[in-house]
Amino acid sequence: MDINTIAAMAGVSRATVSRFLNDGYVSDEKRRRIAEVIEETGYVPSRQAQTLRTGKTGVVGVIIPKINSASISRMVTGLSDVLEKARYQILLANTANEAMSEVDYLKLFADGGSVDGIILVATVLTPEHLRTLGALSLPHVVLGQRVEGHRCVYHDDFHAVRDITLHALANGSRPAYLGVMEEDVAAGHDRHEGFLSACAERGATPLGEELPRSEFTIEGGYLACERLIDAHPEVDTVVCATDRIAAGAMACLREYGREVPADVQVTGLGDSDIAQVMTPTLTTLHYHFRTSGAEAARMLLDAMGKAEDRAQRVCMSYEIFSRNSTRRKA
Amino acid sequence: MDINTIAAMAGVSRATVSRFLNDGYVSDEKRRRIAEVIEETGYVPSRQAQTLRTGKTGVVGVIIPKINSASISRMVTGLSDVLEKARYQILLANTANEAMSEVDYLKLFADGGSVDGIILVATVLTPEHLRTLGALSLPHVVLGQRVEGHRCVYHDDFHAVRDITLHALANGSRPAYLGVMEEDVAAGHDRHEGFLSACAERGATPLGEELPRSEFTIEGGYLACERLIDAHPEVDTVVCATDRIAAGAMACLREYGREVPADVQVTGLGDSDIAQVMTPTLTTLHYHFRTSGAEAARMLLDAMGKAEDRAQRVCMSYEIFSRNSTRRKA
Repeated sequence: MDINTIAAMAGVSRATVSRFLNDGYVSDEKRRRIAEVIEETGYVPSRQAQTLRTGKTGVVGVIIPKINSASISRMVTGLSDVLEKARYQILLANTANEAMSEVDYLKLFADGGSVDGIILVATVLTPEHLRTLGALSLPHVVLGQRVEGHRCVYHDDFHAVRDITLHALANGSRPAYLGVMEEDVAAGHDRHEGFLSACAERGATPLGEELPRSEFTIEGGYLACERLIDAHPEVDTVVCATDRIAAGAMACLREYGREVPADVQVTGLGDSDIAQVMTPTLTTLHYHFRTSGAEAARMLLDAMGKAEDRAQRVCMSYEIFSRNSTRRKA
Repeated sequence: MDINTIAAMAGVSRATVSRFLNDGYVSDEKRRRIAEVIEETGYVPSRQAQTLRTGKTGVVGVIIPKINSASISRMVTGLSDVLEKARYQILLANTANEAMSEVDYLKLFADGGSVDGIILVATVLTPEHLRTLGALSLPHVVLGQRVEGHRCVYHDDFHAVRDITLHALANGSRPAYLGVMEEDVAAGHDRHEGFLSACAERGATPLGEELPRSEFTIEGGYLACERLIDAHPEVDTVVCATDRIAAGAMACLREYGREVPADVQVTGLGDSDIAQVMTPTLTTLHYHFRTSGAEAARMLLDAMGKAEDRAQRVCMSYEIFSRNSTRRKA
């Protein structure tokens, strides 16, 4: 069943059916005949034809830095819930933490005519990112980083890590931080600053600041912790930028015969599902990732003219989940 | 910079530039002038224009059942390596284990004109899936399940679970299986059958076969193990369909005061990164997920006419990684 068949059955030209589908001028009589045929045959114009006609795809593009991540997964669940309810399909572009690949996918979505709006789950924002975002005519939202001049939803990384560090320093005095590259403003720079701010407030000297940063992985945490113990065996509190880094650190401490939390306390961030199955269970920060995904989706629906007005910038809150990898108050 | 500007600079009509870009007839003199202007200006036709011209998008669509999964992540890494080398971009559709959503995304990719080929990472294949796959004119590959009449890459789930069960039964005699729904032929049915086959060979009675199946999550494993211990406290070997189910089972056994592996042995499947940070470390099966992703991508390149001939069906192998959650030979 296609437009030619509809035209033949209605006894009109192909162009007339096309005008009908595109809301152009068609006489009442022909309009009635075409509508009847469409009703009878149950003809549904192909998505490609619909897109050409309406300029809308019914699809949202979401750019994510990695797929095997509890936090990203929760964000995607949150935004999918909202967008699917609004009858959007979602295409994900996974950049595997390649900054330039993010720019390429922004351009694919921007030029391809395949999506109506974009959510960028952001990590490192280079000048090239900002240029590409600035040139974007499609509605878009940045999730995970604060960006001037663009709709964004982000987490309060500074205060979150500051608070969990203060929590741990209630029962520790020789802290170190296992973090990631500072170019990631939220997860790198802001979390690190939160740690330093807490150390300053408690008068504790941060150890291992001279050591290289970690990767976002369990193995990265293991290696960073090994460097730390070698350089600063006196460390008694390890604040980690993510739960996976904390999992690696705990595995390393075990191999070095350090007991957690008696010898060394460890904290994570993200409250991923591994935090509860580690031995001991991990003290961590719970971010409302699912809610932040949903918030970004609602913001995008607003930008696409599909929902009520929303704030253009939202900072999400957090909670400390105190488990067994930190000491109880003496 | 657009086609009108190119036309003006070259002193030719817009239609001539269009014919030039579409490999239509253009006189040698005009061809030279247009080529010069394009060379000077560095003009790159938009992706939309390229797609209209060539009928190719340079994009591959990949449908996945979930994003927060070590195995899926490794498959995506493997296929991305191959496809990116062949200069394809990749769009992922995450179906969150909703079978009908898979069908919808197959149709989106099939009708949308947004991709040149499709890889379906399959779990449950309903008759509707098979109908949609059968009607697909785009090149496609099924990854993770064996499907007659379609290119596919799958794992030897039956023999893998059979072997790891035999491995555990060398030091155990009262086995139970924590698996997932049988509708997932590979991960549900085939793994379960492998377990039963090993039990039969060793003359061991499988315990808890009457109990409901688990979810694919850590929590699902915990709950299923709780039901198992309540119904069959004598169990001494728990074979799990995935590492996450095994992680949940180990957390449950710990709470019930059962020592692993002294009281109860546990095995997983997938060799995800959590397998090495659990206490004790998990005996598991290593599937070559990354290689299977790469294989599926090469098969798709072949189907799209972009690579040498490949087999249309590949069954991947596996290895047992024996760690500390199973007993050593007495």
